[in-house]
Amino acid sequence: MTAAPSASLPPLDPAAAEPYYRQIYDRVRGAIASGALKPGDRLPSARALMKELGLARGTIEAAYALLTAEGYIQARGQAGTVVSPELKPRAPQPVAPPPDPATAEPSFRPDTTLPFQMGLPALDVFPRKIWARLGARCIRAMQPADMAHPSVHGLQALRAEIAAYLHLSRGVDCSPSQVFVTTGYRHTLQLVGQALFKAGDRVWLENPGYPPTREVLQHLGVVAAPVPVDADGLVVDDGLRTAPRARGAIVTPAHQAPLCVSLSLPRRLALLDWASRNKAWIVEDDYDGEFRYVSRPLPALQSLDRHGRVLYAGTFSKLLFPSLRLAYLVVPPALVPRFEQIGQAFAGGSPQLTQAIVTAFITEGHFARHIQRMRRLYAERRAATVAGLESVLGRHLRIDPQPGGMHLILRLQHRRSDRKLAARLREAGLFAEALTDWSFERDGPSALMLAFTNVDSRRSAEGLAKRMLELL
Amino acid sequence: MTAAPSASLPPLDPAAAEPYYRQIYDRVRGAIASGALKPGDRLPSARALMKELGLARGTIEAAYALLTAEGYIQARGQAGTVVSPELKPRAPQPVAPPPDPATAEPSFRPDTTLPFQMGLPALDVFPRKIWARLGARCIRAMQPADMAHPSVHGLQALRAEIAAYLHLSRGVDCSPSQVFVTTGYRHTLQLVGQALFKAGDRVWLENPGYPPTREVLQHLGVVAAPVPVDADGLVVDDGLRTAPRARGAIVTPAHQAPLCVSLSLPRRLALLDWASRNKAWIVEDDYDGEFRYVSRPLPALQSLDRHGRVLYAGTFSKLLFPSLRLAYLVVPPALVPRFEQIGQAFAGGSPQLTQAIVTAFITEGHFARHIQRMRRLYAERRAATVAGLESVLGRHLRIDPQPGGMHLILRLQHRRSDRKLAARLREAGLFAEALTDWSFERDGPSALMLAFTNVDSRRSAEGLAKRMLELL
Repeated sequence: MTAAPSASLPPLDPAAAEPYYRQIYDRVRGAIASGALKPGDRLPSARALMKELGLARGTIEAAYALLTAEGYIQARGQAGTVVSPELKPRAPQPVAPPPDPATAEPSFRPDTTLPFQMGLPALDVFPRKIWARLGARCIRAMQPADMAHPSVHGLQALRAEIAAYLHLSRGVDCSPSQVFVTTGYRHTLQLVGQALFKAGDRVWLENPGYPPTREVLQHLGVVAAPVPVDADGLVVDDGLRTAPRARGAIVTPAHQAPLCVSLSLPRRLALLDWASRNKAWIVEDDYDGEFRYVSRPLPALQSLDRHGRVLYAGTFSKLLFPSLRLAYLVVPPALVPRFEQIGQAFAGGSPQLTQAIVTAFITEGHFARHIQRMRRLYAERRAATVAGLESVLGRHLRIDPQPGGMHLILRLQHRRSDRKLAARLREAGLFAEALTDWSFERDGPSALMLAFTNVDSRRSAEGLAKRMLELL
Repeated sequence: MTAAPSASLPPLDPAAAEPYYRQIYDRVRGAIASGALKPGDRLPSARALMKELGLARGTIEAAYALLTAEGYIQARGQAGTVVSPELKPRAPQPVAPPPDPATAEPSFRPDTTLPFQMGLPALDVFPRKIWARLGARCIRAMQPADMAHPSVHGLQALRAEIAAYLHLSRGVDCSPSQVFVTTGYRHTLQLVGQALFKAGDRVWLENPGYPPTREVLQHLGVVAAPVPVDADGLVVDDGLRTAPRARGAIVTPAHQAPLCVSLSLPRRLALLDWASRNKAWIVEDDYDGEFRYVSRPLPALQSLDRHGRVLYAGTFSKLLFPSLRLAYLVVPPALVPRFEQIGQAFAGGSPQLTQAIVTAFITEGHFARHIQRMRRLYAERRAATVAGLESVLGRHLRIDPQPGGMHLILRLQHRRSDRKLAARLREAGLFAEALTDWSFERDGPSALMLAFTNVDSRRSAEGLAKRMLELL
C-alpha cells in the first residue's frame, strides 16, 4: 500500500467560492469516484498536504474529518490515512437540474429593501450596539439546559414580560399563560386558524385589508367575507348585513391596515356585541398600535372585551425588527387549553437565544426607551416625508391625514392606475404598493402606499420625490 | 401646579420579582388610577427620585420613558414632568383570572431534561465556546439589511451549505433552491401537509413510529395508514396490501424511529417503485442518519429516487441542539414552485441570526468536526450505557442490538406494562418512553426506550441502573 501522491488530486482554486476544505473534500471524493484513488490507497498526511498546498493544518483536518465522518477515508494511526477498504464506488448520480430562475417574489415578502419599503421600522437608528452586547452576553451564558427543547409556548420569562408590557401599554389584561410566542403574524394566524376555524368557515376581513391575512386563511380553507372600511374603521353594520353568521373577524382597530383610520368606540362595541351574541372570534391584529402621533395610543379592543371573544395578536417585527421572527398571540382564558393543545402540534418555533435576548432587552428598559424614541422619530419622519413629497409632487397627489401608522397614503389625481404606477416605481428602484392590491375589488379606490419610517430627512424625501416625478 | 411628593407613591419592594423601573411605573400608574395623582400634577424629577430611592438614574428614566410613551405623563422642559392633562382615568378592568394550573406536558414535548431523555444530542460536549464566539461575531456584524425580512425560504448561504453538506454526507443531490429552511420537523411536516395532502388523504406511517408525525398529520386531517416494521424496516408489502392507494408515506429509512433498524435495499426499491407508479409522495425523515456506528452511514433513500417522489427532511436538533429551532426540507425539482408558494404563506420562521451562526459554523468546518466527534462519542456512550445497564439489570431485560441511533431499546422480561414502568421511572426522575406509546395498538410489543447520548460513563449508567432496579 503506497501513499497516493497528492498530485493525483486536481489543483485547488483560490478564486473558487467554496472554502479550501470543501475543495479538498470534493477532490478526494472525486478521485475516489473516478477510481484515481482506490479502496485501501493511502492519502497524503495532513502535514504533507499542508506543506504542499501552503494551507493551515486546520483546513486539511476539516476536510479529512468530513471525509472520515462520511466513511470515505479511515485514520489508521501510524499507518496513516487510507481510503476505506470496504468502500464501493457509488453509481453515478443523475445531474441535479440547474437552479430555477429566481422567481419574482410577490410584493408582500420582499427580498430587498427599497426606499419607502413598507413593513419596516427605522432600521438605521436601532440600538445595534446595545443589542449586540445583550446578544453576546446571552449566547455566552448558554448552558446545556438552554440547548434542550425550549418551552413550546414560549420562554416563561418572555411570556411574563409580554403580559406586563401589554398591560401597561395597551390596556391588555392577561396572565403569562395566555401568551403564546410565535414566529410572526402568519404563524400566529395559522395557529388561530388551526385552533378555531375549519375549512368552509366564513370570516370577516377588512376591505381593503392586509393581503397576507387573506393569503393564510385561504390556504387553510377559510372563506373571506369582505367588510368595507370607512373613516370610522370597519363598517360593522355592513358585516352584520352581509355575513351575520361568520365565525370570526380579523381586524386592525388601532390603525387600520392600510387606511390607518381608528375603529371608533361605537363600532368597537358593536363588533364585540356581535361576536359575543354570535360566538364568533375576533382577532385584533395590533401590529403598530404604539405608533400614534396625535394623542396617546388607544387602548386595545381586547381591553373592552367582557366575554372572552378577542384574541390579541402582536409582533416584534415593527417594534424591533422583522428578521427577529418573533410575535405573539394572547388568547382569552377559556381558550388556553385549546391553544396549548394546538401549540403542542405546531408551535415552538422561536429559538431560545432570540427569546432570551428580547427578554433582556425588555427587562433592562431598552424596549420602553426604544418605543418612545421611535414614536418621536416617526412623527418627525412622517412630517418631513409629507413636506418633501408635497413640495415636489403636490399638484399630482394628495396625502391622507392619519393619526398614526408607519406609511403614507398618496391619493392620485386624474384617476390613474395605482398598480401600473407602483410597478413602474419599483422597476425604478422605489418601493410603492397599490391600494388596489389590498382591495377585494379591482375597481376600488386608487392610491399609492409608501413607508416613511426609513426616510431620514425632508431633503431625502425631496430627492426621492423628484425621482418619482419623472415616472408619473 | 405643585410637584406631587414622591411620598404619594407606595414604597418600592427590593424583594419583588419585577425590576425597579417596572415598580415605579406600576406605582405611578396606580396613583393616577386611584386619583392620588391627577391630570396636570407634577411628578418628582428623575434626579429627586434617584436620590430619594437610591436608584440609578437610568432606572427612573426607563420608568418615565415608558410612562411617557404610553401617554400617562408628559415632559414639559423646565416645567418638569406632569401627569398628562388630557388623561381621563380608565374604567377599572376586570381582574385577570388566575393562571391555569400547569397542564401536564405530553411526553413528546418535555419541558425539563431528565437522565436518559430522548431526542437530545450530548449537550455537555457541545463546543459552546466556539459557538459563542461565532454568535457574538454574527450579532456584532448585523447591518440594517440583515434586520429586514429574511428570505422566506431561508438564507441563501445556509441553503447552499445544506445542499453541499447533504451531497457529501448523505448522497443527496440537490440545488440550494430545493432546500427550504424550517423551524423544526413539525414545521417541515406541516409544510408538506399543506403543499401535498388534503384532508381525508391516507398516508402510510410506520408502526411503531414517531408520535409527533401522527399528531401533526391528524391536525391537518390526514388519515394514518399504519404499516408494520420488522427487522428490515417498513414492511412495504403490507402497505401495498392494506393501503395501495395512499397518497404518501412518512419513513425513517436510516434508523427507524424507534426500532433503529435500517430499511433494506429491496424494501427501498419496492417503496420507490410503489410511489412512482402510484404518484405518491415519500417523506424521508433522516433525523439521525449520521449516527451509525457499525459501518459508514447509509446513503439517503432520496439518492435512489429516479422519479422525483422523495422529499428529504433533515434537522439540526440532533446534530447541533434543539433550542436552535432549525431544520430543513429538500423537495424534488418539480415541487420547487409549489413549495415556494406554500413557503410564502407559511414559512419564514427562522431568525436571520440563527441562520447566520449555523452558516458560519458549517463554513468554518466546525460542523463536520463536531459530527465526527459525536459519532465517536455516541459509539462510546452507547457501549458504556449498555454495559452499565446490563451489569445491574441484566436479568430483567435484554437490550436490542442496533446499528445506529441515539437511544436504546430495553425489552422487558416477564411481560410487564412498559407504560406503567415508564410512568414510575419518570415520577422518580428518570426518563423513559414506552414502546407501546409509539404503536398504533395498545397490545403491541412492550419495551422501554432510553437515550444514551447524555450518559457520560459506565459508572453513571450503573448508578442510574441501580435507581431503576428499585422501581422494577
